[in-house]
Amino acid sequence: MTIGNLISEIEKKQSFLCIGLDVDLEKIPPFLLQTDDPIFEFNKAIIDATHNYAVAYKPNLAFYEAYGLQGWQSLEKTIDYLNAHYPELYTIADAKRGDIGNTSAMYARTFFEVLNFDAVTVAPYMGRDSIEPFLTFENKHTILLALTSNEGALDFQTLQVNGEELYKQVIRKSKKWKNSDRLMYVVGATKAEYLAEIRKLLPHSFLLVPGVGAQGGNLQEVCKYGLSEDVGLLVNSSRGIIYASQDEDFAHAAGLKAKALQKEMQTILNDR
Amino acid sequence: MTIGNLISEIEKKQSFLCIGLDVDLEKIPPFLLQTDDPIFEFNKAIIDATHNYAVAYKPNLAFYEAYGLQGWQSLEKTIDYLNAHYPELYTIADAKRGDIGNTSAMYARTFFEVLNFDAVTVAPYMGRDSIEPFLTFENKHTILLALTSNEGALDFQTLQVNGEELYKQVIRKSKKWKNSDRLMYVVGATKAEYLAEIRKLLPHSFLLVPGVGAQGGNLQEVCKYGLSEDVGLLVNSSRGIIYASQDEDFAHAAGLKAKALQKEMQTILNDR
Repeated sequence: MTIGNLISEIEKKQSFLCIGLDVDLEKIPPFLLQTDDPIFEFNKAIIDATHNYAVAYKPNLAFYEAYGLQGWQSLEKTIDYLNAHYPELYTIADAKRGDIGNTSAMYARTFFEVLNFDAVTVAPYMGRDSIEPFLTFENKHTILLALTSNEGALDFQTLQVNGEELYKQVIRKSKKWKNSDRLMYVVGATKAEYLAEIRKLLPHSFLLVPGVGAQGGNLQEVCKYGLSEDVGLLVNSSRGIIYASQDEDFAHAAGLKAKALQKEMQTILNDR
Repeated sequence: MTIGNLISEIEKKQSFLCIGLDVDLEKIPPFLLQTDDPIFEFNKAIIDATHNYAVAYKPNLAFYEAYGLQGWQSLEKTIDYLNAHYPELYTIADAKRGDIGNTSAMYARTFFEVLNFDAVTVAPYMGRDSIEPFLTFENKHTILLALTSNEGALDFQTLQVNGEELYKQVIRKSKKWKNSDRLMYVVGATKAEYLAEIRKLLPHSFLLVPGVGAQGGNLQEVCKYGLSEDVGLLVNSSRGIIYASQDEDFAHAAGLKAKALQKEMQTILNDR
Protein backbone atom coordinates (compact mmCIF):
# COMPACT_ATOMS: atom_id res chain seq x y z
CA MET A 1 0.00 0.00 0.00
CA THR A 2 1.22 3.52 -0.70
CA ILE A 3 1.44 6.17 2.01
CA GLY A 4 -1.12 8.15 0.00
CA ASN A 5 -3.64 5.31 0.24
CA LEU A 6 -3.04 5.00 3.97
CA ILE A 7 -3.60 8.73 4.48
CA SER A 8 -6.80 8.61 2.40
CA GLU A 9 -8.13 5.79 4.55
CA ILE A 10 -7.29 7.72 7.72
CA GLU A 11 -9.14 10.79 6.42
CA LYS A 12 -12.12 8.73 5.29
CA LYS A 13 -12.54 6.83 8.54
CA GLN A 14 -11.38 9.71 10.74
CA SER A 15 -9.29 7.16 12.54
CA PHE A 16 -5.60 6.33 12.90
CA LEU A 17 -6.28 3.29 15.04
CA CYS A 18 -4.14 0.17 14.68
CA ILE A 19 -5.43 -2.97 16.39
CA GLY A 20 -2.85 -5.39 17.76
CA LEU A 21 -3.83 -9.00 17.14
CA ASP A 22 -1.82 -10.47 20.03
CA VAL A 23 -3.89 -13.58 20.53
CA ASP A 24 -3.34 -15.62 23.67
CA LEU A 25 -5.43 -18.82 23.85
CA GLU A 26 -5.73 -18.34 27.60
CA LYS A 27 -7.48 -15.00 27.14
CA ILE A 28 -9.92 -15.60 24.28
CA PRO A 29 -13.52 -16.73 24.89
CA PRO A 30 -13.30 -20.39 25.93
CA PHE A 31 -16.03 -21.51 23.52
CA LEU A 32 -13.72 -20.70 20.60
CA LEU A 33 -11.29 -23.38 21.73
CA GLN A 34 -13.69 -25.99 20.30
CA THR A 35 -13.25 -24.67 16.76
CA ASP A 36 -10.59 -26.01 14.38
CA ASP A 37 -8.57 -22.81 14.43
CA PRO A 38 -9.41 -20.72 17.51
CA ILE A 39 -6.81 -18.03 16.79
CA PHE A 40 -8.07 -17.41 13.27
CA GLU A 41 -11.75 -17.57 14.30
CA PHE A 42 -11.01 -15.02 17.02
CA ASN A 43 -9.12 -12.72 14.63
CA LYS A 44 -11.79 -12.98 11.94
CA ALA A 45 -14.55 -12.01 14.37
CA ILE A 46 -12.47 -9.15 15.80
CA ILE A 47 -11.59 -7.81 12.34
CA ASP A 48 -15.19 -8.03 11.10
CA ALA A 49 -16.44 -6.16 14.16
CA THR A 50 -13.80 -3.42 14.23
CA HIS A 51 -12.75 -2.73 10.62
CA ASN A 52 -14.93 0.36 10.29
CA TYR A 53 -13.06 2.04 13.12
CA ALA A 54 -9.47 1.00 12.43
CA VAL A 55 -7.07 1.55 9.54
CA ALA A 56 -4.40 -1.01 10.46
CA TYR A 57 -3.98 -4.44 12.05
CA LYS A 58 -0.81 -5.66 13.66
CA PRO A 59 -0.32 -9.32 14.61
CA ASN A 60 2.70 -9.78 16.88
CA LEU A 61 4.61 -12.79 15.61
CA ALA A 62 5.52 -14.01 19.11
CA PHE A 63 1.91 -14.96 19.77
CA TYR A 64 1.72 -17.10 16.63
CA GLU A 65 5.13 -18.77 16.81
CA ALA A 66 4.30 -19.86 20.36
CA TYR A 67 1.76 -22.27 18.88
CA GLY A 68 4.19 -23.75 16.38
CA LEU A 69 2.89 -24.95 13.04
CA GLN A 70 -0.72 -24.33 14.04
CA GLY A 71 0.14 -20.76 15.01
CA TRP A 72 1.93 -20.08 11.74
CA GLN A 73 -1.11 -21.39 9.88
CA SER A 74 -3.39 -19.10 11.88
CA LEU A 75 -1.14 -16.17 10.97
CA GLU A 76 -1.27 -17.04 7.27
CA LYS A 77 -5.04 -17.36 7.35
CA THR A 78 -5.35 -14.04 9.18
CA ILE A 79 -3.24 -12.04 6.73
CA ASP A 80 -4.91 -13.77 3.77
CA TYR A 81 -8.33 -12.89 5.21
CA LEU A 82 -7.31 -9.25 5.69
CA ASN A 83 -5.91 -8.97 2.16
CA ALA A 84 -8.87 -10.72 0.54
CA HIS A 85 -11.74 -9.04 2.38
CA TYR A 86 -10.35 -5.67 3.45
CA PRO A 87 -7.61 -4.65 1.01
CA GLU A 88 -8.02 -1.06 2.19
CA LEU A 89 -6.61 -2.00 5.61
CA TYR A 90 -2.93 -1.55 6.35
CA THR A 91 -1.19 -4.65 7.73
CA ILE A 92 1.86 -4.74 9.98
CA ALA A 93 3.87 -7.81 10.98
CA ASP A 94 5.20 -6.94 14.43
CA ALA A 95 8.29 -9.09 14.21
CA LYS A 96 11.17 -6.85 15.37
CA ARG A 97 13.58 -8.67 13.06
CA GLY A 98 17.09 -7.69 11.97
CA ASP A 99 20.14 -9.73 10.94
CA ILE A 100 23.13 -9.58 8.60
CA GLY A 101 22.30 -8.52 5.05
CA ASN A 102 21.52 -11.80 3.27
CA THR A 103 19.53 -13.00 6.27
CA SER A 104 17.54 -9.78 6.57
CA ALA A 105 16.74 -10.20 2.87
CA MET A 106 15.16 -13.57 3.73
CA TYR A 107 13.05 -11.99 6.49
CA ALA A 108 11.99 -9.21 4.12
CA ARG A 109 10.83 -11.72 1.52
CA THR A 110 8.93 -13.65 4.19
CA PHE A 111 6.92 -10.69 5.43
CA PHE A 112 6.51 -8.70 2.22
CA GLU A 113 6.17 -11.47 -0.37
CA VAL A 114 5.31 -14.82 1.24
CA LEU A 115 2.88 -13.36 3.77
CA ASN A 116 2.18 -10.10 1.89
CA PHE A 117 2.13 -7.67 4.79
CA ASP A 118 2.35 -3.93 4.07
CA ALA A 119 4.92 -3.34 6.79
CA VAL A 120 7.22 -5.07 9.26
CA THR A 121 8.86 -3.86 12.47
CA VAL A 122 12.67 -4.14 12.74
CA ALA A 123 15.32 -3.57 15.43
CA PRO A 124 18.19 -1.13 14.73
CA TYR A 125 21.08 -2.62 16.76
CA MET A 126 22.82 -4.26 13.77
CA GLY A 127 22.80 -1.05 11.73
CA ARG A 128 22.36 -0.01 8.14
CA ASP A 129 23.04 -3.25 6.26
CA SER A 130 20.60 -5.13 8.49
CA ILE A 131 17.75 -2.79 7.50
CA GLU A 132 18.40 -1.76 3.90
CA PRO A 133 17.35 -5.17 2.47
CA PHE A 134 13.85 -4.44 3.81
CA LEU A 135 13.83 -1.02 2.17
CA THR A 136 14.25 -2.37 -1.36
CA PHE A 137 10.56 -3.34 -1.53
CA GLU A 138 8.37 -0.79 -3.27
CA ASN A 139 5.12 0.24 -1.57
CA LYS A 140 6.16 -1.65 1.56
CA HIS A 141 7.26 -0.01 4.80
CA THR A 142 9.81 -0.89 7.41
CA ILE A 143 9.07 0.31 10.91
CA LEU A 144 12.24 0.88 12.90
CA LEU A 145 12.28 0.66 16.69
CA ALA A 146 13.31 4.11 17.90
CA LEU A 147 11.94 4.61 21.40
CA THR A 148 9.94 1.70 22.81
CA SER A 149 7.20 1.78 25.43
CA ASN A 150 8.77 -0.53 28.00
CA GLU A 151 10.87 0.33 31.04
CA GLY A 152 13.96 -1.21 29.43
CA ALA A 153 13.86 1.57 26.82
CA LEU A 154 15.84 3.58 29.37
CA ASP A 155 18.67 1.02 29.48
CA PHE A 156 20.18 1.88 26.09
CA GLN A 157 17.80 3.97 23.94
CA THR A 158 18.12 7.10 26.04
CA LEU A 159 21.87 6.89 26.73
CA GLN A 160 23.79 9.96 25.57
CA VAL A 161 25.70 9.42 22.32
CA ASN A 162 27.40 12.26 20.47
CA GLY A 163 25.54 14.73 22.66
CA GLU A 164 22.06 13.30 22.20
CA GLU A 165 20.07 10.18 23.08
CA LEU A 166 20.83 6.97 21.19
CA TYR A 167 17.29 6.80 19.76
CA LYS A 168 17.88 10.18 18.10
CA GLN A 169 21.11 8.88 16.58
CA VAL A 170 19.16 5.89 15.29
CA ILE A 171 16.64 8.22 13.66
CA ARG A 172 19.27 10.61 12.32
CA LYS A 173 21.42 7.89 10.77
CA SER A 174 18.45 5.95 9.38
CA LYS A 175 17.39 8.99 7.39
CA LYS A 176 20.55 8.62 5.31
CA TRP A 177 19.91 4.98 4.39
CA LYS A 178 18.90 4.05 0.87
CA ASN A 179 15.12 4.30 0.32
CA SER A 180 14.70 5.81 3.77
CA ASP A 181 11.39 7.30 2.63
CA ARG A 182 10.04 3.77 3.19
CA LEU A 183 10.81 3.96 6.90
CA MET A 184 8.34 4.50 9.71
CA TYR A 185 9.28 4.49 13.41
CA VAL A 186 8.08 2.88 16.62
CA VAL A 187 7.69 5.48 19.38
CA GLY A 188 6.25 4.40 22.72
CA ALA A 189 3.25 6.33 24.00
CA THR A 190 4.39 6.16 27.59
CA LYS A 191 6.83 8.94 26.72
CA ALA A 192 4.55 11.42 24.94
CA GLU A 193 6.83 14.36 25.64
CA TYR A 194 9.55 12.70 23.57
CA LEU A 195 7.24 12.88 20.54
CA ALA A 196 7.85 16.62 20.22
CA GLU A 197 11.59 15.95 20.00
CA ILE A 198 11.05 13.21 17.46
CA ARG A 199 8.80 15.38 15.29
CA LYS A 200 11.66 17.87 14.97
CA LEU A 201 13.77 15.11 13.41
CA LEU A 202 10.92 13.49 11.49
CA PRO A 203 8.34 16.12 10.54
CA HIS A 204 6.61 13.92 7.95
CA SER A 205 7.25 10.27 8.86
CA PHE A 206 4.58 7.96 10.14
CA LEU A 207 5.05 6.92 13.76
CA LEU A 208 3.63 3.67 15.12
CA VAL A 209 2.71 4.33 18.71
CA PRO A 210 2.15 1.31 20.95
CA GLY A 211 1.36 1.52 24.61
CA VAL A 212 -1.90 3.47 24.59
CA GLY A 213 -4.21 1.78 27.06
CA ALA A 214 -2.80 -1.29 28.83
CA GLN A 215 0.70 0.15 28.90
CA GLY A 216 -0.44 3.51 30.27
CA GLY A 217 -0.12 5.90 27.34
CA ASN A 218 -2.59 8.76 26.83
CA LEU A 219 -4.12 9.45 23.42
CA GLN A 220 -4.56 13.21 23.92
CA GLU A 221 -0.93 13.62 24.92
CA VAL A 222 0.30 11.51 22.03
CA CYS A 223 -1.66 13.59 19.53
CA LYS A 224 -0.68 16.90 21.09
CA TYR A 225 2.99 16.16 20.42
CA GLY A 226 2.84 13.60 17.65
CA LEU A 227 0.38 14.66 14.94
CA SER A 228 1.90 15.80 11.66
CA GLU A 229 0.30 17.70 8.79
CA ASP A 230 -0.83 14.36 7.26
CA VAL A 231 -1.75 12.91 10.69
CA GLY A 232 1.42 10.76 10.58
CA LEU A 233 0.37 8.52 13.46
CA LEU A 234 -0.79 4.97 13.83
CA VAL A 235 -1.84 4.48 17.43
CA ASN A 236 -1.97 0.85 18.47
CA SER A 237 -4.23 -0.75 21.02
CA SER A 238 -4.22 -4.50 21.60
CA ARG A 239 -5.46 -5.89 24.91
CA GLY A 240 -7.79 -2.94 25.58
CA ILE A 241 -9.82 -3.79 22.47
CA ILE A 242 -9.48 -7.49 21.71
CA TYR A 243 -10.06 -8.69 25.27
CA ALA A 244 -12.96 -6.36 26.04
CA SER A 245 -15.11 -9.41 26.81
CA GLN A 246 -14.53 -13.15 27.19
CA ASP A 247 -18.17 -14.01 26.44
CA GLU A 248 -20.12 -14.78 23.27
CA ASP A 249 -20.35 -11.01 22.68
CA PHE A 250 -16.56 -10.55 22.58
CA ALA A 251 -16.46 -9.22 19.02
CA HIS A 252 -19.28 -6.75 19.64
CA ALA A 253 -17.54 -5.59 22.82
CA ALA A 254 -14.29 -5.13 20.88
CA GLY A 255 -16.21 -3.15 18.25
CA LEU A 256 -17.54 -0.79 20.91
CA LYS A 257 -14.05 -0.22 22.33
CA ALA A 258 -12.66 0.44 18.85
CA LYS A 259 -15.56 2.78 18.06
CA ALA A 260 -14.94 4.76 21.25
CA LEU A 261 -11.28 5.22 20.31
CA GLN A 262 -12.25 6.18 16.75
CA LYS A 263 -14.65 8.84 18.10
CA GLU A 264 -11.93 10.22 20.34
CA MET A 265 -9.59 10.34 17.34
CA GLN A 266 -12.24 12.05 15.19
CA THR A 267 -12.68 14.76 17.82
CA ILE A 268 -8.93 15.29 17.97
CA LEU A 269 -8.68 15.49 14.16
CA ASN A 270 -11.57 17.97 14.00
CA ASP A 271 -10.04 20.15 16.70
CA ARG A 272 -6.72 20.51 14.86
CA MET B 1 21.90 -28.56 28.68
CA THR B 2 24.18 -27.30 31.46
CA ILE B 3 27.34 -25.34 30.76
CA GLY B 4 29.25 -28.20 32.36
CA ASN B 5 27.87 -30.66 29.80
CA LEU B 6 28.75 -28.32 26.96
CA ILE B 7 32.32 -27.94 28.24
CA SER B 8 32.67 -31.74 28.61
CA GLU B 9 31.56 -32.23 25.05
CA ILE B 10 34.05 -29.62 23.84
CA GLU B 11 36.88 -31.35 25.72
CA LYS B 12 35.84 -34.77 24.47
CA LYS B 13 35.59 -33.79 20.83
CA GLN B 14 38.41 -31.25 20.98
CA SER B 15 36.10 -28.97 19.06
CA PHE B 16 34.16 -25.80 19.71
CA LEU B 17 32.61 -25.77 16.27
CA CYS B 18 29.03 -24.63 15.76
CA ILE B 19 27.48 -25.35 12.38
CA GLY B 20 24.96 -22.85 11.05
CA LEU B 21 22.03 -24.56 9.35
CA ASP B 22 21.10 -21.65 7.08
CA VAL B 23 19.41 -23.63 4.37
CA ASP B 24 18.63 -21.92 1.09
CA LEU B 25 16.76 -24.09 -1.44
CA GLU B 26 18.67 -22.38 -4.24
CA LYS B 27 21.99 -23.59 -2.84
CA ILE B 28 21.34 -27.18 -1.81
CA PRO B 29 21.97 -30.12 -4.18
CA PRO B 30 19.16 -29.98 -6.75
CA PHE B 31 18.35 -33.70 -6.45
CA LEU B 32 17.07 -33.08 -2.91
CA LEU B 33 14.30 -30.87 -4.25
CA GLN B 34 12.47 -34.02 -5.33
CA THR B 35 12.11 -35.22 -1.74
CA ASP B 36 9.09 -34.40 0.45
CA ASP B 37 11.07 -32.14 2.76
CA PRO B 38 14.30 -30.97 1.09
CA ILE B 39 15.35 -28.72 3.97
CA PHE B 40 15.04 -31.45 6.56
CA GLU B 41 16.69 -34.07 4.32
CA PHE B 42 19.58 -31.68 3.75
CA ASN B 43 19.94 -30.92 7.48
CA LYS B 44 19.72 -34.59 8.47
CA ALA B 45 22.48 -35.55 6.04
CA ILE B 46 24.67 -32.63 7.12
CA ILE B 47 24.19 -33.40 10.82
CA ASP B 48 24.90 -37.13 10.35
CA ALA B 49 28.09 -36.34 8.43
CA THR B 50 29.44 -33.62 10.75
CA HIS B 51 28.29 -34.44 14.30
CA ASN B 52 31.63 -35.98 15.31
CA TYR B 53 33.39 -32.69 14.63
CA ALA B 54 30.90 -30.15 15.97
CA VAL B 55 29.40 -29.48 19.38
CA ALA B 56 26.57 -27.16 18.37
CA TYR B 57 24.09 -26.55 15.56
CA LYS B 58 22.45 -23.23 14.86
CA PRO B 59 19.50 -22.92 12.45
CA ASN B 60 18.81 -19.29 11.56
CA LEU B 61 15.06 -18.76 11.74
CA ALA B 62 14.98 -16.44 8.72
CA PHE B 63 15.78 -19.31 6.40
CA TYR B 64 12.87 -21.40 7.72
CA GLU B 65 10.24 -18.66 7.99
CA ALA B 66 10.93 -17.76 4.37
CA TYR B 67 9.29 -21.05 3.36
CA GLY B 68 6.20 -20.47 5.47
CA LEU B 69 4.44 -23.46 7.00
CA GLN B 70 6.70 -25.91 5.20
CA GLY B 71 9.76 -24.13 6.55
CA TRP B 72 8.46 -24.16 10.11
CA GLN B 73 7.79 -27.88 9.78
CA SER B 74 11.35 -28.45 8.51
CA LEU B 75 12.66 -26.53 11.54
CA GLU B 76 10.59 -28.64 13.95
CA LYS B 77 11.78 -31.85 12.33
CA THR B 78 15.39 -30.67 12.46
CA ILE B 79 15.38 -29.79 16.15
CA ASP B 80 13.45 -32.98 16.98
CA TYR B 81 16.01 -35.01 15.05
CA LEU B 82 18.89 -33.34 16.87
CA ASN B 83 17.31 -33.88 20.29
CA ALA B 84 16.33 -37.50 19.58
CA HIS B 85 19.53 -38.74 17.94
CA TYR B 86 22.25 -36.48 19.31
CA PRO B 87 21.19 -35.22 22.75
CA GLU B 88 24.84 -34.40 23.48
CA LEU B 89 24.76 -31.64 20.84
CA TYR B 90 24.02 -28.06 21.86
CA THR B 91 21.25 -26.38 19.85
CA ILE B 92 20.86 -22.66 19.18
CA ALA B 93 17.88 -20.94 17.60
CA ASP B 94 19.38 -17.95 15.83
CA ALA B 95 16.31 -15.76 16.06
CA LYS B 96 17.56 -12.38 17.35
CA ARG B 97 14.25 -11.79 19.11
CA GLY B 98 13.33 -9.22 21.77
CA ASP B 99 10.08 -7.47 22.66
CA ILE B 100 8.22 -6.06 25.67
CA GLY B 101 8.12 -8.40 28.67
CA ASN B 102 4.97 -10.47 28.13
CA THR B 103 5.80 -10.84 24.44
CA SER B 104 9.40 -11.87 25.09
CA ALA B 105 7.99 -14.48 27.47
CA MET B 106 6.04 -15.93 24.53
CA TYR B 107 9.19 -16.08 22.39
CA ALA B 108 11.09 -17.74 25.25
CA ARG B 109 8.42 -20.43 25.58
CA THR B 110 8.50 -21.00 21.82
CA PHE B 111 12.22 -21.61 21.60
CA PHE B 112 12.89 -23.26 24.97
CA GLU B 113 9.69 -25.29 25.46
CA VAL B 114 7.77 -25.73 22.21
CA LEU B 115 10.87 -26.30 20.07
CA ASN B 116 13.19 -27.33 22.93
CA PHE B 117 16.36 -25.51 21.86
CA ASP B 118 19.17 -25.10 24.39
CA ALA B 119 19.72 -21.47 23.49
CA VAL B 120 18.29 -18.53 21.55
CA THR B 121 19.88 -15.34 20.27
CA VAL B 122 18.31 -12.01 21.33
CA ALA B 123 18.78 -8.32 20.48
CA PRO B 124 19.51 -5.84 23.32
CA TYR B 125 17.92 -2.60 22.06
CA MET B 126 14.76 -2.90 24.20
CA GLY B 127 16.74 -3.43 27.41
CA ARG B 128 16.45 -5.44 30.57
CA ASP B 129 12.75 -6.34 30.67
CA SER B 130 12.91 -7.56 27.07
CA ILE B 131 15.61 -10.13 27.97
CA GLU B 132 14.90 -11.22 31.55
CA PRO B 133 11.88 -13.38 30.56
CA PHE B 134 14.30 -15.56 28.57
CA LEU B 135 16.62 -15.86 31.59
CA THR B 136 14.01 -17.50 33.81
CA PHE B 137 14.52 -20.87 32.09
CA GLU B 138 16.88 -23.21 33.94
CA ASN B 139 19.60 -24.94 31.90
CA LYS B 140 18.75 -22.77 28.91
CA HIS B 141 20.92 -19.96 27.60
CA THR B 142 20.19 -16.60 26.06
CA ILE B 143 22.78 -15.30 23.65
CA LEU B 144 22.80 -11.50 23.57
CA LEU B 145 24.00 -9.59 20.51
CA ALA B 146 26.97 -7.55 21.67
CA LEU B 147 29.21 -6.88 18.68
CA THR B 148 28.02 -8.35 15.40
CA SER B 149 30.10 -9.33 12.37
CA ASN B 150 28.49 -7.06 9.78
CA GLU B 151 29.55 -3.62 8.63
CA GLY B 152 26.49 -2.03 10.25
CA ALA B 153 27.92 -3.00 13.64
CA LEU B 154 29.82 0.29 13.41
CA ASP B 155 26.62 2.33 13.07
CA PHE B 156 25.53 2.03 16.70
CA GLN B 157 27.39 -0.73 18.56
CA THR B 158 30.72 1.08 18.62
CA LEU B 159 29.39 4.59 19.35
CA GLN B 160 30.83 6.12 22.52
CA VAL B 161 28.44 6.03 25.48
CA ASN B 162 29.53 7.01 28.99
CA GLY B 163 33.16 6.90 27.83
CA GLU B 164 33.07 3.49 26.20
CA GLU B 165 31.50 1.74 23.20
CA LEU B 166 27.79 0.93 23.34
CA TYR B 167 28.44 -2.82 23.07
CA LYS B 168 30.49 -2.62 26.28
CA GLN B 169 27.61 -0.85 28.00
CA VAL B 170 25.32 -3.62 26.79
CA ILE B 171 27.65 -6.23 28.30
CA ARG B 172 28.20 -4.29 31.52
CA LYS B 173 24.50 -3.68 32.15
CA SER B 174 23.46 -7.19 31.16
CA LYS B 175 25.71 -8.64 33.87
CA LYS B 176 23.41 -7.05 36.47
CA TRP B 177 20.24 -8.64 35.12
CA LYS B 178 18.53 -11.41 37.02
CA ASN B 179 19.97 -14.86 36.18
CA SER B 180 22.69 -13.22 34.09
CA ASP B 181 24.77 -16.39 34.50
CA ARG B 182 22.48 -17.80 31.80
CA LEU B 183 23.73 -15.24 29.27
CA MET B 184 26.16 -15.84 26.43
CA TYR B 185 27.17 -13.18 23.90
CA VAL B 186 27.45 -12.84 20.13
CA VAL B 187 30.80 -11.38 19.14
CA GLY B 188 31.67 -11.10 15.46
CA ALA B 189 34.92 -12.70 14.31
CA THR B 190 35.67 -9.96 11.85
CA LYS B 191 36.80 -7.87 14.84
CA ALA B 192 39.09 -10.31 16.66
CA GLU B 193 41.00 -7.55 18.42
CA TYR B 194 37.79 -6.55 20.20
CA LEU B 195 37.67 -10.01 21.80
CA ALA B 196 40.51 -9.07 24.14
CA GLU B 197 38.46 -6.11 25.38
CA ILE B 198 35.40 -8.27 25.78
CA ARG B 199 37.28 -10.93 27.73
CA LYS B 200 38.20 -8.25 30.29
CA LEU B 201 34.50 -7.69 30.90
CA LEU B 202 33.48 -11.35 30.53
CA PRO B 203 36.33 -13.59 31.64
CA HIS B 204 34.16 -16.71 31.93
CA SER B 205 31.17 -16.30 29.61
CA PHE B 206 30.68 -18.27 26.46
CA LEU B 207 30.95 -16.22 23.28
CA LEU B 208 29.23 -17.25 20.07
CA VAL B 209 31.48 -16.13 17.23
CA PRO B 210 29.93 -15.96 13.77
CA GLY B 211 31.78 -14.75 10.73
CA VAL B 212 34.64 -17.23 10.52
CA GLY B 213 35.01 -18.21 6.86
CA ALA B 214 32.53 -16.61 4.47
CA GLN B 215 32.45 -13.35 6.45
CA GLY B 216 36.26 -13.09 6.65
CA GLY B 217 37.11 -13.92 10.26
CA ASN B 218 40.25 -15.83 11.18
CA LEU B 219 40.13 -18.75 13.63
CA GLN B 220 43.67 -18.29 14.97
CA GLU B 221 43.02 -14.63 15.73
CA VAL B 222 39.69 -15.37 17.37
CA CYS B 223 41.28 -17.96 19.65
CA LYS B 224 44.29 -15.82 20.48
CA TYR B 225 42.04 -13.16 21.96
CA GLY B 226 38.89 -15.10 22.79
CA LEU B 227 39.72 -18.38 24.54
CA SER B 228 38.91 -18.55 28.24
CA GLU B 229 40.05 -21.06 30.83
CA ASP B 230 37.09 -23.32 29.92
CA VAL B 231 37.45 -22.60 26.18
CA GLY B 232 34.42 -20.28 26.34
CA LEU B 233 33.98 -20.09 22.58
CA LEU B 234 31.52 -21.46 20.07
CA VAL B 235 32.83 -20.62 16.63
CA ASN B 236 30.20 -20.77 13.94
CA SER B 237 30.62 -21.65 10.30
CA SER B 238 27.64 -21.95 7.96
CA ARG B 239 28.16 -21.56 4.23
CA GLY B 240 31.79 -22.74 4.33
CA ILE B 241 30.67 -26.15 5.59
CA ILE B 242 27.12 -26.84 4.44
CA TYR B 243 27.63 -25.71 0.84
CA ALA B 244 31.00 -27.43 0.36
CA SER B 245 29.49 -29.36 -2.58
CA GLN B 246 26.25 -29.27 -4.55
CA ASP B 247 26.61 -32.87 -5.74
CA GLU B 248 25.51 -36.24 -4.37
CA ASP B 249 28.58 -36.14 -2.09
CA PHE B 250 27.50 -32.89 -0.39
CA ALA B 251 27.29 -34.41 3.10
CA HIS B 252 30.66 -36.08 2.80
CA ALA B 253 32.19 -32.82 1.56
CA ALA B 254 30.64 -30.97 4.51
CA GLY B 255 32.07 -33.61 6.83
CA LEU B 256 35.57 -33.01 5.45
CA LYS B 257 35.25 -29.26 5.93
CA ALA B 258 34.00 -29.73 9.49
CA LYS B 259 36.80 -32.22 10.22
CA ALA B 260 39.43 -29.76 8.96
CA LEU B 261 38.09 -27.06 11.27
CA GLN B 262 37.96 -29.53 14.18
CA LYS B 263 41.61 -30.46 13.56
CA GLU B 264 42.58 -26.81 13.53
CA MET B 265 40.69 -26.32 16.80
CA GLN B 266 42.36 -29.37 18.35
CA THR B 267 45.80 -27.99 17.51
CA ILE B 268 44.88 -24.65 19.04
CA LEU B 269 43.57 -26.31 22.21
CA ASN B 270 46.70 -28.47 22.53
CA ASP B 271 48.99 -25.48 22.06
CA ARG B 272 47.38 -23.52 24.88
